[in-house]
Amino acid sequence: MGLPNAEEVKAFLMQLQANICAGLERLDGQASFATDSWQRAEGGGGISRVLTDGAVFEQAGVNFSHVMGASMPASATAHRPELAGRSFEAMGVSLVIHPKNPYIPTTHANVRFFIARKEGADPVWWFGGGFDLTPYYPFESDVKEWHQSAKDLCAPFGNEVYPKYKEWCDKYFFLPHRGETRGVGGLFFDDLNHWEFDKCFDYMQAVGNGFLTAYAPIVERRKDTAYGERERDFQLYRRGRYVEFNLVYDRGTLFGLQTGGRTESILMSMPPLVRWQYAYSPEAGTPEAELYERFLKPQDWLAD
Amino acid sequence: MGLPNAEEVKAFLMQLQANICAGLERLDGQASFATDSWQRAEGGGGISRVLTDGAVFEQAGVNFSHVMGASMPASATAHRPELAGRSFEAMGVSLVIHPKNPYIPTTHANVRFFIARKEGADPVWWFGGGFDLTPYYPFESDVKEWHQSAKDLCAPFGNEVYPKYKEWCDKYFFLPHRGETRGVGGLFFDDLNHWEFDKCFDYMQAVGNGFLTAYAPIVERRKDTAYGERERDFQLYRRGRYVEFNLVYDRGTLFGLQTGGRTESILMSMPPLVRWQYAYSPEAGTPEAELYERFLKPQDWLAD
Repeated sequence: MGLPNAEEVKAFLMQLQANICAGLERLDGQASFATDSWQRAEGGGGISRVLTDGAVFEQAGVNFSHVMGASMPASATAHRPELAGRSFEAMGVSLVIHPKNPYIPTTHANVRFFIARKEGADPVWWFGGGFDLTPYYPFESDVKEWHQSAKDLCAPFGNEVYPKYKEWCDKYFFLPHRGETRGVGGLFFDDLNHWEFDKCFDYMQAVGNGFLTAYAPIVERRKDTAYGERERDFQLYRRGRYVEFNLVYDRGTLFGLQTGGRTESILMSMPPLVRWQYAYSPEAGTPEAELYERFLKPQDWLAD
Repeated sequence: MGLPNAEEVKAFLMQLQANICAGLERLDGQASFATDSWQRAEGGGGISRVLTDGAVFEQAGVNFSHVMGASMPASATAHRPELAGRSFEAMGVSLVIHPKNPYIPTTHANVRFFIARKEGADPVWWFGGGFDLTPYYPFESDVKEWHQSAKDLCAPFGNEVYPKYKEWCDKYFFLPHRGETRGVGGLFFDDLNHWEFDKCFDYMQAVGNGFLTAYAPIVERRKDTAYGERERDFQLYRRGRYVEFNLVYDRGTLFGLQTGGRTESILMSMPPLVRWQYAYSPEAGTPEAELYERFLKPQDWLAD
């Protein structure tokens, strides 16, 4: 008990991908996921699943990948000398959902596991992941519910877990050049190995399984909200921030692109349609201004 | 003669911005540039000029900036110890044009000057710049003409100039994660100070003034070409590569965003509307496939 079991993690991740895709298809009610399996010359591969042009989801991409190598790349061991000369495996599920209706938030979730082995030494391993929400026309009740879901799933692991990973999420998904958070946050964790393996793995499962539990009710509640050109325009404009974050700051995206990852799978996160507008700024007193003023700042959503 | 004269460079750059904007307005025949002047808290500022929703240009942004500081930022002197403790000025004109008609190429041009001074020492200075073309439905004759213009303006400065800066352009505007050049290239130079100041400045002027000479005939020739949804869709899709290049690789963009530059001016390069499509690949034998196969690879356009 407590020994790292990569096979078990992999089985969970593949099942998670299947469950999330099935759940999203049910929510969409119209479109289905297409599946691409791919292999990596250096070892491993993945399964990319994409739903496009649905009734509810304009695009949803759910990736599973499991890559491995006989020795860690030099770039990855420069700051982690304990990993030099080890073989490694990295696996994860990563998803980004771009709904059609501007009243449904965009969302991202990811869970991942890394392990590096060497003959005659203990393996080095850790988990990472999280989920975060990017609304265009937010409802405070949705945001509170989202964070309550995150807090509830963290509770069995200790009272410090939610505030710690909630804060990490706010810090990570921040665009310094805009002075804005990417959205209203959620959870973000990395390098998780300070509990024994089983507990860490349990937590990663709770986050992975908790994602749809948190997101589905918001989709159900907002998918039939009427909207017009104004809301669509604002959604396309705000999607630009998503692109800016992912291409300028997101470590996973940049690492993937720079190390010869599968470009199409990495850039499944890009929105299907995006707009930029020079010097746009929302008119005071509008719902668009409220997004900036009230929502795109780190705060305790569960206060009071 | 031969001593660096920053005031003269600045006067040229401001005039260049005015000339290019006037030239683009003439080409557009309908829309005019709006003007934003801005100041930088740490010293200097700029003039951003944007034309939107024209008859020919969906968006054209032409920036002038002149920023200065009492001492070089540490990040900029780490690899250039000769600059430590110096005051500096950086100035330039930078533009990106996104035409409406997919038969007109997108283009980018930039000329810039940098100088760092210290009491009792010679100033350290250099010029940089260039221009490059990003067609969607290229005509080989346009590409040859574009490169012939570039070669002609380089000729008075030496026969080695065009091939050297043409090659630098191909190398700089390359997307490794796509295995594609951003377009068909042009000229790119940096750190230019190996001639005396006057000759370097003359070359920078030749590049700045040469841009519209090279671009205008292509616009005139292609602006009335009929196109439909297919060509528009492909243009929007290919604009995604422009975004990917500028946000992931472009040094000027990243440096600007990371050092508190004026975000709206830096991101004037972003296309007004962009599309991403998972795993898109053009059908064999189509004009779209020809772009990839024949044009997005470095080559000698003036051979034969």
